[in-house]
Parts: sequence; C-alpha cells; structure tokens
Amino acid sequence: MAKQLIVNLFEMATPGHITHGLWRQPDNQRERYADISYWTELAQVAEAAGFDAIFLADVVGAYDVYDDSFEPALERGLQIPNIDPLLLVAAMAAVTEHVGFGVTFSTTYEPPFAFARRMATLDHLTRGRVGWNIVTSYLPNAARNFGLDDQIPHDTRYEIAAEYIDVLYKLWEGSWDDDAVVADKEVGTYSRVGAVRAIDHVGTHFRVKGPHLSEPSRQRVPLLFQASASKAGIAFAAQHAEVLFTADRPPGALERNIAAIRDESVRRGRLPEDTRYVVMATVIVAPTEEEARAKYEGYRTFRDPEGAFIHMSVPFHPLQHPADITVREALEREGRQDVIDAGGLPLHLTVGQFAGAVDEAWDSRFLAVGSPEQVADTIERWLDVDGIDGINLRQYHSFDTARDFGELVVPELRRRGRMRVAYTPGETLRERIFGEGPRLPERHPAARYRGGANL
Amino acid sequence: MAKQLIVNLFEMATPGHITHGLWRQPDNQRERYADISYWTELAQVAEAAGFDAIFLADVVGAYDVYDDSFEPALERGLQIPNIDPLLLVAAMAAVTEHVGFGVTFSTTYEPPFAFARRMATLDHLTRGRVGWNIVTSYLPNAARNFGLDDQIPHDTRYEIAAEYIDVLYKLWEGSWDDDAVVADKEVGTYSRVGAVRAIDHVGTHFRVKGPHLSEPSRQRVPLLFQASASKAGIAFAAQHAEVLFTADRPPGALERNIAAIRDESVRRGRLPEDTRYVVMATVIVAPTEEEARAKYEGYRTFRDPEGAFIHMSVPFHPLQHPADITVREALEREGRQDVIDAGGLPLHLTVGQFAGAVDEAWDSRFLAVGSPEQVADTIERWLDVDGIDGINLRQYHSFDTARDFGELVVPELRRRGRMRVAYTPGETLRERIFGEGPRLPERHPAARYRGGANL
Repeated sequence: MAKQLIVNLFEMATPGHITHGLWRQPDNQRERYADISYWTELAQVAEAAGFDAIFLADVVGAYDVYDDSFEPALERGLQIPNIDPLLLVAAMAAVTEHVGFGVTFSTTYEPPFAFARRMATLDHLTRGRVGWNIVTSYLPNAARNFGLDDQIPHDTRYEIAAEYIDVLYKLWEGSWDDDAVVADKEVGTYSRVGAVRAIDHVGTHFRVKGPHLSEPSRQRVPLLFQASASKAGIAFAAQHAEVLFTADRPPGALERNIAAIRDESVRRGRLPEDTRYVVMATVIVAPTEEEARAKYEGYRTFRDPEGAFIHMSVPFHPLQHPADITVREALEREGRQDVIDAGGLPLHLTVGQFAGAVDEAWDSRFLAVGSPEQVADTIERWLDVDGIDGINLRQYHSFDTARDFGELVVPELRRRGRMRVAYTPGETLRERIFGEGPRLPERHPAARYRGGANL
Repeated sequence: MAKQLIVNLFEMATPGHITHGLWRQPDNQRERYADISYWTELAQVAEAAGFDAIFLADVVGAYDVYDDSFEPALERGLQIPNIDPLLLVAAMAAVTEHVGFGVTFSTTYEPPFAFARRMATLDHLTRGRVGWNIVTSYLPNAARNFGLDDQIPHDTRYEIAAEYIDVLYKLWEGSWDDDAVVADKEVGTYSRVGAVRAIDHVGTHFRVKGPHLSEPSRQRVPLLFQASASKAGIAFAAQHAEVLFTADRPPGALERNIAAIRDESVRRGRLPEDTRYVVMATVIVAPTEEEARAKYEGYRTFRDPEGAFIHMSVPFHPLQHPADITVREALEREGRQDVIDAGGLPLHLTVGQFAGAVDEAWDSRFLAVGSPEQVADTIERWLDVDGIDGINLRQYHSFDTARDFGELVVPELRRRGRMRVAYTPGETLRERIFGEGPRLPERHPAARYRGGANL
C-alpha cells in the first residue's frame, strides 16, 4: 500500500510563530490567539479537514540574544506574548472528538511529578488523543526565568532529560497495574491494594516517591514527539521518540539523518517501523496554479526577514560581528563549538547572507505552491523520494491555510490513497499513527516498568 | 440591601473528595471524574443554577500518614486517584459563558514563572472568570514527590509563599503596561517597546528575570481565595486574600476569626469590604421537609467515618496511640506543637472520640436539611447572624446536589433578594464578588508594581 501522509497543523499560542510578519494581513486571525474561540474554531477546522493532530510549539522565555534585548522580538509579536499550550489542549478537547494534539513541554525546568499528572490528565480528557513534543529548551532567557544564570549546556540538558523521562515512565507505566481500578460500588473498593505502588525514584537530578496520582489513561505514555538534530538529541530520539520532527536539511542529508536515527533505534532494540518522520512544510493551494501563485506572492509581501533572523539568532549575537565573516567563524568567536556540532545552521554562509536567507530557507525545501493536483504530486514525491512520513503544516494565514488544505488537498490525497479517508471512531493518537496501540510496544524502554518491574 | 449569598460548588477531580463513601451510591457520577463530559456537564449544571463559581480543591500527594500507608486512602478513592484541576478549568471554559472557577495551586513545589503564565492563560481563556485558591500543601507525601525528605515546616512554607506571590504580582501587574499591546497591523507593532519590562526578581527562594510572557488578561491577578486558620496563614490572608474559605468552627470562634482577619487586613491598609468569607456547607433540599430528611438519611447510609478519619489524620498517626488519650496528648507525643498552635483540630476529644466524630463534624455547623423555605431561612441566619458571605457547597451526590440547589434553593433566595437574579454578561469573577474590578484595588499590595514601579 502506498504510504499515507501524516498531517499536523503547526501552531503556537502567539501572534508570530514561524511566519514572521504574516500576522499583519488584514484578515489574519492571529491576534485572537489568547481568545478561547480562536482555539475552539481552529480545532474544529482541523477536525473537519481530517488532520491527524494540532502540533503546538512553545517557549518559556523571550528571544533576547539578538541585539541583547527582547524588544526586537516584542515589537514584532515574535513568540511573545504567548500563553500555555497544555491548557489550550483541554479547551480544544471539549469541542472535538477525533483530532489529536501534540504539545511541547521542556524537561529542563519543572518537576516531573507534576508534569506526569498533567499529561495523564490530558490523555484522560482527550480519551487518548494527546502527544508530547519533548524539548530541552534553548533560550537563555528561559533559564533566567527559572532561577538559573544561563542556559544549561546542551549535553547536560539531555542527561537531565534522560532521567526526567525515566521518572515519567515509572509513574505512567510502573505505578498502577492495568486492573488497579475496579470502582466497585458494592464492595466499596475504588482501587485495589497491591496493584498501585510508589516508584521510589532516587537519581542524580530527581527524587520522586509516588505513587502516581492519576489512574491509567488510554495511552498512559502520550505519543512521543521529538524535534532535534544534535548528536545527543539523536541518541535520545532513537531511544524514546515515536514521531520525529526532523530539521529541514539539504537533499541527501535529510535521508541520511532519518536512516541514522532509524538504525540507531534498531540497535537499541526497536523496530524500523517504530519511528515516523515529519518535516515542516509550506503548502499554498488554490483551484488553479495561477491563483495559488498569486496567493503565495500576496502572503510574501507581508514577510519580515529580520524577524526570521532574530528568531534564528539564539546561538550567537549576529550584530556583534562583521557581516562578511561566516556563521562558523562567528560561532567560533563566541566559543559555541556546541552549536557548530549540533548542526542545523548554515555555517558556510556569511552572517550577512544568513540574515537575508533564513526566511527563504524555511520555505525552500518542503514548499508546494499550486493546484490541488500539483500539490499532491509534490507531496507524493516527499513521501516516496524524500522518505518522510508526514508534515507539520506551516500556517501563512489563520484559518485559511488549514481550510485550504482541508478543502482542496485532502480530497485529492484521499483519491490517490495517500491519506486516510476518515477518522476511526475512538482510536487513540498512537493507533492513528502506527495502526497499533494504544500503549507503547513491549520493546519500547517505557515498557520495562510495567507491573512494577525494574522500579 | 440585604446581603446576597456567594455560592461556590465545592469539587475535586477525584472519586472521594470530602463526602467519603458517597461515591458508592448507585447513581452517583463521581467515578466519571476523569472523563471530560463529567466536567462539561457539571459546569453547565452550575451555570444553569446561577452559581458564582466552581471551587476546585487539589492535593499533589497521597494521604499516607494514617497507618503509615497510602493504601487505606487508595482503596476508598479518598483523593486518589486525582487529576490536574487547572486543565479542567480550560475544558469547562469552552462550554460556559458565566460561571467562575476557583482553582487550588500550591506555592511550595513548582516555579512561579510557569504558574504565572498558566493562571494568565486561564484568565484569558475564561475572559476573567478565574480565581486562585492559594495553599502551601500539607501532605508529607507531596513533599516526597517533589524531591524533599519531608514536609517543609508550616511557617517556612508561608515565608516561601510570601516571596512566591510577590514574584507573581511583579509578573502579573508590573511587567506589562495597560497600553503595551497595540496589535497595529499597519505599522507592524504588536507590543510597544518600553511598555514591557523584565522584573529582575532576586530573592531568598526565587530568581526570576522576566518579562512575563502573557500580555495583560482581564483581571491580571486572578481572584485570590485562601483557606487557612493558622497564625501564619491569617497574616498572609489579611495581606493578600480576597475570598477566605474559613474553617468550620464552634459558634463564636468563627465570628472572632472573621473579625480578626478583617481587622488585620485593615491594619495593612485594606478596607473592611475588601475581604469576603465563605464556609463549607451541606444543603439537602427537597419540596418538603420530609422528603429532604429522607434524602439526607439515604445519603448517610453510604457514609464512611473511617474515611473521614483517614482524611483528617495528616498531622499525626492515630493508630499508634491508645484510643483514650486526647488528640492534644497524641500531638504532643509526636512533637507536633505546630499543629496544636495552628488550631482546627478538636484537641479535647480522645483519639477514639475523634475517629467517630470527624465525619459528623463536617456536617454539624453549616447544615441545612429541609424544604426550600426552611433551607433559605437557615441560610439567611448564616448570612445575618453568623456573618458569613457565602458557601462552598459540599456535594453528597453528583449532580443532584448542584441541581437540587439550583432548582429549589436559588429561586427562593432570589425571591428574598438573597441571591443575584442573573449573571451580568461579561463581568469578571472579581466584579461579580465585589461589584468592582476587574483589577485589584490600588490599596492591595499587588498594585504597587503597576507601571513597573517598585520592581
């Protein structure tokens, strides 16, 4: 059977997420991001379109590296202001039945015990439609909002993340047996003694007694998303992640990256089909190619390349360097070998070139502009030639981007057998993506705590 | 004008909140507490009834002091399992327009920066209908879930709480000016430079850089609830709280307690009308007294006094003492002078008497069983003689307790001018309770950070 496309609507509760300047379109709705009706409407649009999930990005700090100030970002609405994405999932769950949710949360600053209960709560409230996008946070300002002097080094963040997720697995999988809750009104037993246990975790970074407070939810472990291109990030992903949001890389590199993670995951006892790969994509569609091109050009008049540059300037201070040295040299001057090693930045460009190129780069690789047939042709190439499994659909306009895709692209992909024809009632997000579940397979590391083993 | 009753529906996302054993009634709905439809239905019942708010209790640990085990609580569904209440508010906000929400969150274990954004998010999503019930946590197991060996001493918890709330005030009131957000699409300015600032908090327990990530919400500071009877708790309440959930005390003591807090608040520059006092109340109503009494007796057959005793046994280990020593002696033997000083426990009873009496005690003081007229008579006495302003309605049955009150008591109270006849469209929770707002008055300590002053 031909590979079917996973479609996540890429969102963030802020005016300017990743298409900087586009909020300025007169009929764009992004300034309503803090109103509940924005989210209930968006969720219903996404569900009507048949999307797999709404993928919510998040940051817990301001972008304040560029020009050593958060004001350039503030003025543009560039990821500030923003509000909490977990709460939005609960609101959207109240008005939908099928669409899933991927929600970003960092392992670096908040206690795992509370997060374990929050995600379990969302898995209950959505009836198993929730995923977690695991991040370790990269903004220096975020560290300063949580009592630190500066960002924790990249590899240390992944060490913390490894213990953090271990605590979560113990709570989610190890603390309550499947048959723990009986809710027997006759006998008066809600949960069975002996079927629930403390986890008694004592580690380097965390001590957590337990028991987990939530009874088992449908998936127990939310579908595990991860976005990372670094060496430490790849090792973590190979071990834990189910859906990888991979970086937009030059031809060849993306395929090698996918193969490297998949191979590493197999070395760790998982199966090749246990991981899926999604990329950020821009899809501008209209009944005809001409209309689509006109729409795309119309959107582009609002673009803010400087906003994109500010967004990408977290690892270094571009304004402190001559425009004609390379990004690699600038990073070396700031002693950021870790950033060079992590990959993802165009090291060979000059700082000046980078400033002009970053906004284009977000569109360059996975960009489809055209009629429904043309867009579907392109997406088929992404699936079959580039080897991806799905996309995080970048929004140029709320809610037109989602509506256009739902009304024009989804029917064409379904005609070609490239997208599911309908939601399966009652399925969890994991079952939707993998065709099995709702729990993680036995070969996943989370499973080793089942029944209280290995605690 | 006669005083009008504040009515909050008292809830917790768990099978057994505070009417232990009652979940066993065949048609009680409490075992649905983890299903989103329980909460959307409850919220609609509460709104149809005209309640001011749904007040959500919470704990972040298990009751494990009694018999040194969490299993007696576990078996009974006594506040375990439970799920996260903030997420429920977001879900309920999606299906209501008017009813408010009071949500419990502890100042002891989680970072203030994240909580500031979460509550701001809820204030946005509810359009100003949210309140925060400030607690410092009293369960030893909660401390162990968050990396500590044991509970932090009571007075230290209040020291932490004082700095915690100061950080919140700086973020909520001081970081963004009223006119910071312009969302000017023509010019391309979302927020005005100079109108948003870091808070640069450096204290004993917290360091928080800022700026706050959320733009100003309608109330900015959620309506501040507090439940505490201890000396440190009273000082904190007099300084900060707007609605006090006061302990169920013997006649005379309640009135003295209210007067003491109010006097202390006035000494701190607030006005007598800046604080409101609510008590937990049991109201069982039916068209006739006979039917109401029969209903009450029917409920009582499901009562679980041992569950109530387990619930109240957090400060000491009752099973380790002879049944014939007093509660005071038992506490002294465990070195818990702090608990004796805090008040709230019946020190003169023997441990054996206490075990039998605690469940009755929850009903004893503010109990009304009867016809709508009889119940309304009783409630008028609570308002006029006891001096309270409102109740947290204890649920014997979901959703009958709320429906009965809404259908039978509310119309009678409205006839007597003792309850508002309707919601005022668009009002915030603070405006509903105080008739002014939506922001805190200038004399409240939160106001001193406005415009970035005193940061």
